[in-house]
Amino acid sequence: MPFISIGDLNEKEIIPGYSGRAMHTGTMTYMYWTVDEGAIIPEHAHMHEQVATVLKGKFELTVDGETQLLEPGKVAVIPPNVKHGGRAVTPCELLDVFLPEREDYKF
Amino acid sequence: MPFISIGDLNEKEIIPGYSGRAMHTGTMTYMYWTVDEGAIIPEHAHMHEQVATVLKGKFELTVDGETQLLEPGKVAVIPPNVKHGGRAVTPCELLDVFLPEREDYKF
Repeated sequence: MPFISIGDLNEKEIIPGYSGRAMHTGTMTYMYWTVDEGAIIPEHAHMHEQVATVLKGKFELTVDGETQLLEPGKVAVIPPNVKHGGRAVTPCELLDVFLPEREDYKF
Repeated sequence: MPFISIGDLNEKEIIPGYSGRAMHTGTMTYMYWTVDEGAIIPEHAHMHEQVATVLKGKFELTVDGETQLLEPGKVAVIPPNVKHGGRAVTPCELLDVFLPEREDYKF
């Protein structure tokens, strides 16, 4: 079944203010986030490559010590094991793509 | 440099009505399309896994003989070597993620 409605996926609050719906393709995990204004994700790192996209809103992201404001049209490519964290400047809809799959997002 | 503005990437019309900007991460290619209303991409297949996302507009996609209307919030996961094609019902902005990288989109 190649077609997936994001709204049909289970939603889970992973950390306060960050609720996600996860789609797993077998090779990648697509995580669709709804984020509350002001919510902070502390700096962290993981073995997955990550591409961070803001679908709606403004999100301040720090990658390896460099901070920039992401909006639709500006993305971040985060290599494996590189520290990153951020803050929702407005309510946001985000898409994070992880390679390989995030086993911890299988809920 | 982890931050990339899509508008800074080179744009190329790949087939009539489909202009794309390609971002290559080393493992994946992110292709950001601007598509004219009514433009058709004929059925084709490739060895890359593909996840098709409509960022703006409505796009009618056929995957392995099944046709559905994609809009923001509904995506398609196209396995390697599976035939697919489609038509822009409205002017569209699309994001296709390919795994592995599309060598033919390095322009």
